[in-house]
Amino acid sequence: MSEPIRFGIVGGGQLGRMLAQAGAALNARFTFLDPADSPCGRVHGHHLRADWQDDAALTQLVAASDAITFEFENVPADAVERLAAERPTYPPAGALDTARDRWNEKSLFMRLGIEVPPLALVDSQADLESAVATIGLPAVLKTRTLGYDGKGQKVLREMADVADTFAELGSVPLILEGFIAFDHEVSVIAVRGRDGETRAWPLSRNEHRSGILHCATPLAAHDLQAEAEAAAFKVMHELDYVGVMAFEFFVVKEADGSERLLANEIAPRVHNSGHWSIEGAVTSQFENHLRAVAGLPLGETALLAPCAMLNIIGRMPERDAVLAIPGARLHDYGKAPRAGRKIGHITVLAADQASLDARIAAVEALLVNDLGK
Amino acid sequence: MSEPIRFGIVGGGQLGRMLAQAGAALNARFTFLDPADSPCGRVHGHHLRADWQDDAALTQLVAASDAITFEFENVPADAVERLAAERPTYPPAGALDTARDRWNEKSLFMRLGIEVPPLALVDSQADLESAVATIGLPAVLKTRTLGYDGKGQKVLREMADVADTFAELGSVPLILEGFIAFDHEVSVIAVRGRDGETRAWPLSRNEHRSGILHCATPLAAHDLQAEAEAAAFKVMHELDYVGVMAFEFFVVKEADGSERLLANEIAPRVHNSGHWSIEGAVTSQFENHLRAVAGLPLGETALLAPCAMLNIIGRMPERDAVLAIPGARLHDYGKAPRAGRKIGHITVLAADQASLDARIAAVEALLVNDLGK
Repeated sequence: MSEPIRFGIVGGGQLGRMLAQAGAALNARFTFLDPADSPCGRVHGHHLRADWQDDAALTQLVAASDAITFEFENVPADAVERLAAERPTYPPAGALDTARDRWNEKSLFMRLGIEVPPLALVDSQADLESAVATIGLPAVLKTRTLGYDGKGQKVLREMADVADTFAELGSVPLILEGFIAFDHEVSVIAVRGRDGETRAWPLSRNEHRSGILHCATPLAAHDLQAEAEAAAFKVMHELDYVGVMAFEFFVVKEADGSERLLANEIAPRVHNSGHWSIEGAVTSQFENHLRAVAGLPLGETALLAPCAMLNIIGRMPERDAVLAIPGARLHDYGKAPRAGRKIGHITVLAADQASLDARIAAVEALLVNDLGK
Repeated sequence: MSEPIRFGIVGGGQLGRMLAQAGAALNARFTFLDPADSPCGRVHGHHLRADWQDDAALTQLVAASDAITFEFENVPADAVERLAAERPTYPPAGALDTARDRWNEKSLFMRLGIEVPPLALVDSQADLESAVATIGLPAVLKTRTLGYDGKGQKVLREMADVADTFAELGSVPLILEGFIAFDHEVSVIAVRGRDGETRAWPLSRNEHRSGILHCATPLAAHDLQAEAEAAAFKVMHELDYVGVMAFEFFVVKEADGSERLLANEIAPRVHNSGHWSIEGAVTSQFENHLRAVAGLPLGETALLAPCAMLNIIGRMPERDAVLAIPGARLHDYGKAPRAGRKIGHITVLAADQASLDARIAAVEALLVNDLGK
């Protein structure tokens, strides 16, 4: 064997779990830091059950790790700094900072010439009213930080929705975005190595339900692939990024039928819309994230077959019925079911699009998702 | 989550390890029984370090398992019987018995009308001489039991090789096989569920070096696929088999260019010549073995892309160089290197055959295998 690479992962949810599963073939070792009873550590490595800022736990994580990464972006900045001072720690603190804050993120996009929806910073009710006057309605009000899966957002449709809304959202820093009548959403998963090498997977078309990703389907040879990749690579270069990053876009259909991208947000980590890459690509987002963080060469990202990923949310479907669907591969995260919680996913593969569509329909017929909304 | 399925695996080598890796997505749990310091248990489950016949360990294995399987065929029959009395244990004892003994195995093939090389049972030097008189030279003398990777075999080329050879091979029960001038070797990996459902992966073309598998390449839509599958399914049906079985054949080229199969042997387990299925098939041999043993529906076995698997034997190649080859996926079993020992493998995938050939050549250029012979 080669000397095992020891990874430290801040976070012990399903993304950490799938990183560890990807690292198993490479004989990598994993230590997870997570205050919760993580299903990840129990099965796939050593679990340090402690708060993100627990000094002793951070010391242990450093001692157990050759390289450190994160499975979520809201890691306290001082913990990131502490880890980065002692071990190669990626993505870099600056990238996490940027991704944590919608205003910083969108400002970066604008600075790099990446098109975004109309946008304004909202730090008071007065700011909100003036932003609405400029941008118009409908518009979407979002918290600058801590939003995910549609949380921390409010759609403003008429002036009545504007009154007192700054207080309603907690009097925290917000942004107002013009409502985009987009046709659909896509994301590109990209990866950058320590040496600056970049790769991207095929664009994924993402369908959400109640603000939570429902289905992600990779699109082979799509017209917007080059543009999306270029945007991701620009951002990664600017942030001196290392690891996998997801970049989500709105796709706007023009009157002439052509399509245009508007940048929505980045996630500085492996991403739900790239889970299909475990079976559907030569190298998965999880393996390439590990390769990048460890300073290893990146693997090929080509699509192997038409496929799609469907999330299991809140309640598990019947296992035997899922496995009986041709081309279905089940991922059970080992998490207790709870409304709105991602507890697994199903990737379905097929030889052609027609067959894939039928198989997706068969999976959807079995899902008993509880979105909790 | 669904209730985790708890698998007991007799043996803790790389096959058990890859079974556990395949089971991770399904949230399965693993307990391994192996007297050696197994790299498997350390990382992928609980390791009972005890002899195969250790009563307390067998009791623990039963208690920890919903279903039990084997990663090698030479498990003592009484241990198999003990396990099978208490838990669903597959493949069945009779299949292990048959596969352990070359004479029983080949007799079964003959009984089922599956063509084999000329064959004789050899229990003494006199038997050997009479078998040589019937079958002619060259011929291959093999121990009835415990042979693998070319061990326990001797090629007899001239009469001088025959003298005293029964004693030389240990005066144990042998078989003599007519030497087949085969063109190449293939195997079919097949799987049978508890309900009798069968599936097979595409034939694999297998190249050996010094009797050890060097490279296995799946063959899409091969003329002999149906015949090989039919033979495997007949054998599995006859043995009331459950799980994955490998069936190895010699391919003989006729004067008219057509090809013919001659049965060589079966292995009642996941098999080295099916490792490419981890990345190269919709469902791997490892996942389908688990599905079969647990009584779950079987997964699709279709090929996803041209690919090949190359074994890492005795010495690890340079990791970074392997990972830098486009389409290469490295499997490091975490075993100490030793001459002749399988310590890893590399699967290489490509979009077409020409590109695959170039990538295989790139992998071969990096291998520093020590076959120890």
